[in-house]
Amino acid sequence: MYPISFGSDNHSGVHPNIMQAIIEANHGYAPAYGDDPLTHKALEKLQELFGGDCEAWFVLTGTGANVIALQSLISSWQAVICPASAHINVDECGALQKFTQARIQPVDTPDGKLKPEMIESRLQGNRDQHHSQIRMISISQSTEYGSLYTADEIRELAVFAHAHEMYLHIDGARMANAAAALNCSLASITKDAGADIISFGGTKNGLLFGEAIVSFRPELTQAMKYYRKQATQLYSKMRFISAQFLTYLQDDLWKSNAQHANRMCKYLEEQLAKKDNVTITMPAAVNALFCILPKAITPQLMEKYHFYLWNESRNEVRLMCGFYTKAEDVDTFVREI
Amino acid sequence: MYPISFGSDNHSGVHPNIMQAIIEANHGYAPAYGDDPLTHKALEKLQELFGGDCEAWFVLTGTGANVIALQSLISSWQAVICPASAHINVDECGALQKFTQARIQPVDTPDGKLKPEMIESRLQGNRDQHHSQIRMISISQSTEYGSLYTADEIRELAVFAHAHEMYLHIDGARMANAAAALNCSLASITKDAGADIISFGGTKNGLLFGEAIVSFRPELTQAMKYYRKQATQLYSKMRFISAQFLTYLQDDLWKSNAQHANRMCKYLEEQLAKKDNVTITMPAAVNALFCILPKAITPQLMEKYHFYLWNESRNEVRLMCGFYTKAEDVDTFVREI
Amino acid sequence: MYPISFGSDNHSGVHPNIMQAIIEANHGYAPAYGDDPLTHKALEKLQELFGGDCEAWFVLTGTGANVIALQSLISSWQAVICPASAHINVDECGALQKFTQARIQPVDTPDGKLKPEMIESRLQGNRDQHHSQIRMISISQSTEYGSLYTADEIRELAVFAHAHEMYLHIDGARMANAAAALNCSLASITKDAGADIISFGGTKNGLLFGEAIVSFRPELTQAMKYYRKQATQLYSKMRFISAQFLTYLQDDLWKSNAQHANRMCKYLEEQLAKKDNVTITMPAAVNALFCILPKAITPQLMEKYHFYLWNESRNEVRLMCGFYTKAEDVDTFVREI
Amino acid sequence: MYPISFGSDNHSGVHPNIMQAIIEANHGYAPAYGDDPLTHKALEKLQELFGGDCEAWFVLTGTGANVIALQSLISSWQAVICPASAHINVDECGALQKFTQARIQPVDTPDGKLKPEMIESRLQGNRDQHHSQIRMISISQSTEYGSLYTADEIRELAVFAHAHEMYLHIDGARMANAAAALNCSLASITKDAGADIISFGGTKNGLLFGEAIVSFRPELTQAMKYYRKQATQLYSKMRFISAQFLTYLQDDLWKSNAQHANRMCKYLEEQLAKKDNVTITMPAAVNALFCILPKAITPQLMEKYHFYLWNESRNEVRLMCGFYTKAEDVDTFVREI
Repeated sequence: MYPISFGSDNHSGVHPNIMQAIIEANHGYAPAYGDDPLTHKALEKLQELFGGDCEAWFVLTGTGANVIALQSLISSWQAVICPASAHINVDECGALQKFTQARIQPVDTPDGKLKPEMIESRLQGNRDQHHSQIRMISISQSTEYGSLYTADEIRELAVFAHAHEMYLHIDGARMANAAAALNCSLASITKDAGADIISFGGTKNGLLFGEAIVSFRPELTQAMKYYRKQATQLYSKMRFISAQFLTYLQDDLWKSNAQHANRMCKYLEEQLAKKDNVTITMPAAVNALFCILPKAITPQLMEKYHFYLWNESRNEVRLMCGFYTKAEDVDTFVREI
Repeated sequence: MYPISFGSDNHSGVHPNIMQAIIEANHGYAPAYGDDPLTHKALEKLQELFGGDCEAWFVLTGTGANVIALQSLISSWQAVICPASAHINVDECGALQKFTQARIQPVDTPDGKLKPEMIESRLQGNRDQHHSQIRMISISQSTEYGSLYTADEIRELAVFAHAHEMYLHIDGARMANAAAALNCSLASITKDAGADIISFGGTKNGLLFGEAIVSFRPELTQAMKYYRKQATQLYSKMRFISAQFLTYLQDDLWKSNAQHANRMCKYLEEQLAKKDNVTITMPAAVNALFCILPKAITPQLMEKYHFYLWNESRNEVRLMCGFYTKAEDVDTFVREI
Repeated sequence: MYPISFGSDNHSGVHPNIMQAIIEANHGYAPAYGDDPLTHKALEKLQELFGGDCEAWFVLTGTGANVIALQSLISSWQAVICPASAHINVDECGALQKFTQARIQPVDTPDGKLKPEMIESRLQGNRDQHHSQIRMISISQSTEYGSLYTADEIRELAVFAHAHEMYLHIDGARMANAAAALNCSLASITKDAGADIISFGGTKNGLLFGEAIVSFRPELTQAMKYYRKQATQLYSKMRFISAQFLTYLQDDLWKSNAQHANRMCKYLEEQLAKKDNVTITMPAAVNALFCILPKAITPQLMEKYHFYLWNESRNEVRLMCGFYTKAEDVDTFVREI
Repeated sequence: MYPISFGSDNHSGVHPNIMQAIIEANHGYAPAYGDDPLTHKALEKLQELFGGDCEAWFVLTGTGANVIALQSLISSWQAVICPASAHINVDECGALQKFTQARIQPVDTPDGKLKPEMIESRLQGNRDQHHSQIRMISISQSTEYGSLYTADEIRELAVFAHAHEMYLHIDGARMANAAAALNCSLASITKDAGADIISFGGTKNGLLFGEAIVSFRPELTQAMKYYRKQATQLYSKMRFISAQFLTYLQDDLWKSNAQHANRMCKYLEEQLAKKDNVTITMPAAVNALFCILPKAITPQLMEKYHFYLWNESRNEVRLMCGFYTKAEDVDTFVREI
């Protein structure tokens, strides 16, 4: 194990409150596959969080949440349009293609954010039987570049999507960080902004394991439970995910964890900005910081702080903070540069 | 939560030693996706358990283990032959078809066990381009009927498989119970008996979550890590599965848990055998007992003890014991009949 | 080439009227992919044949027609129930699994015909997330055993299907032979009997190539053109299929061809019935005759008349007649036994 | 039907020699599915054409040839890299994703041609389990832009592919036009240049229907016949494709047809180059010409000559010639501008 890591928010372990919840759930017997009281309660809480009129399902991994959510709303002859940098496009080993057999249309973007005008020109093939029909816009909030959509930007995408018979999906592996940064409710950047379905992450923000799919079009996603099982993502001892989510939602632990991660990242940015030999390449909107480090010392820093090279040609690295990042770790790291 | 359940071995929670291991693993940072020291150690232990010359991967669910293992060795134009009662055939919502696009050829069996002579007649279509070519025999050890294969029976199937250019897969969600009942090593009923690939279960026998795929043909399964990721079964904070498996394998916890479950089931059988109004329909080879209960009292018993009706027409029920079953619970239940 | 064959109705060539239609269509240019006047006209004729309120698409092969039709109405978590002898189950190399990723539930039948009571017991798993949900009944008319459904039997299946939220598909590779045998319209044993979608064959009954999918639920099958293209079954020079179908439908060529085939088969049955050393095992309802031949002479007969052994254990063979079968060929064959 | 079309090489009908071959093949019976003497002979001829050491299979459509060829050599966790303009990427309604479930990595190119340096930077993710592994380079010869690869350019791609454990596939829907333009053998730009597998087109160059897959790695493509059947592309009355191919290969009809098409296109280019109001945007390397027409008269020209707008923003159109294009048709068209 490492004492310090800026590698990823999944290098950290489990928040103590979450661990406590797991321990407490471990007594007696419970019906399997979600038919237990903790799960009923956790799903209810989750629905409340988004203002009702929605349905939620727990799954085990973020990739699982994404592909099950997307497959429930598209067919193989349709297509998903997303930023080229999207996790579903580059980091899931083709899981979306495996599950949907549909086409992905990746769009190059400067900052990982999709805008309606980038999509419009791709729609011209619509209604021609030779072309996969774009049915879904998928964005990440926050993005893989550490950038953010405002509620208005999401609303604009949702309106555009619906005007063209498309749906809007949000990969919210780091949705908590986005809401924390915007200081808004989760509902305001998802359901209230017109999103149709989201993946809502837990593992990257302090859970042992567990993600949620939330559908704001429950009338269209009645088959979700079958898709989840068929996708190998139905967990038998479900009470243990539910116990985590109950604690995660209680007293807004999801938010305070994310706020802490964002704050540490902002602090890291401030400290690095003072360094002459470091260039910040992307402002720290949430919990990821992109910057150019001095080439000579990068290898030994990577060895010790376990972060990743993002763009080899210009020695740009990605530094991630999480609920577990300590201010003194930032200080130690910055001092060493 | 329920005080008592004979419903399934996944109605129970987590063994205290396993929970302790999870708690202890929760400090500091660790590389994600299995590149951490606990995972390296756990995989090494697992390989030792099967006598080396094998490769192992951790996944999250039993269905995940089955479909990833099977898909790594068959193509869509091939077929898997299995007992009609197999979990992969009836209880995984068509996951195998989803992942492999291959045909399943279910075979009716009296006790959930497949024998070479049941397969032979199905092979006649081989080499004809109109027919899916059977490439894989998949059996469950122990079976969904609570029956067992001896090492010799498995060897016979493996020899038959290899003589016909097929592989042998074992769904070992309850492999521990089988080894415990036969009082043999896990290797003796898998690798040493000629199996090519297995799913080795943990969740049903005391883990919080976690299953392993073990390939005894590592030269043929080099793509497994890609299949696992694409199947949504790559867990990011892998150290927490690995910590569980290390404890599971240490001092043969897998075996003592399974022995306890089997013993409780045998005890349950003995007590029920004394009842005039109960008919045992299948001897308790492992941790599942099938019996016919008096129809009048079955509903209230099911309400209280959470077991399932197996065959409605003759009021046959399935009673499962697990690592957590207590002798006094058996007594209470039997007394009530 | 062979002078005589009782092997299959696709051992024959092309009916002269059909060939003439192809030759006549070969002048000038035509828009590709079905946007030509011949195709518009042929599809219109086809819709008329079934009494309107339907939509039709031409494809290239019977397997293509089946899998595209079925995939347009089911999802991967659903299942198709069919007789174990169905072409889609045994003779299409798993094409249905490839295209739909859904489960097939084959049912053993004495004569290739499915009845509601055979399906009822399979429906009990419905609504449980662990089980593929049966969504489609698929039957063959006439069947692979040369048997027939009456209009009433089809209606009974359709009513049963719709009462259980299922659809009824008919694989009509030999639909013409069935209608000819029943001396009824095509509509009366399909649309009017409640079928939802059918494959309507041409190649086995005198066409060079070409099959049609006809949907009686056009509101549910709007995506068919995309499924057809994605399935590789969109023919570019479509006018040449359409020209064949126009001729096939004109003056009921489909019916006279089928009547001839059926008549020859009936004649073959009558002649063989007179033979002491031949046992008819299935009456010749359409154009297939199943009988047991003397074992000693079967190999040389097969060599010369190119038919297939159906059931090796009892030396049962299948003899097929087609639009091209001549009475004198039947005489020659019978004489030789 | 249209008297004139520059819309596509599949707007034309069938070459008279090919039609004659079909007519002559229509007598007697023949074994189905390719087990007939004409097919044996045609496949032999085809293998000779490529210099032996290869295996060939007939299919019905170009999309069928592409997806079956590709799927025989890649798995779902792998990827195909191709020009963004490739038919498999944009014009097959996602058939490749449907059949392979693999990822396509489209590369933007100026002229539809891929070069090793465009691929190199995409390979960096290789060996990381999160990324689909590129296993196949697929190019079109001639390209969708009417451009050509020389034998050396193909060799360079093949060498690069093999150096990186990839295969090279060529979509040869218009391979004949390329070979005719380069005045070389088909082998010299395929097998001899290192390609592993190709689709060899017939329908666009005078056939009624029929394409071939040719594998130059027969030891790796033993499952092709199963993939073909499962893909719905096994034609029952195969003799009729084979008869066409025998004629197509005899006296190099494939070449003279392609030469004629190319010559007409060159003639069209020369005539249009004389026009002040027309700008040639891509030289006519094979049988496609891209040019900018006067905007005012384009609609009425399209109405009459049935060609397509390629780039709406600059009024660029595509004009295709085929085996059937007449010099006087070119004259009439040019005169009208």
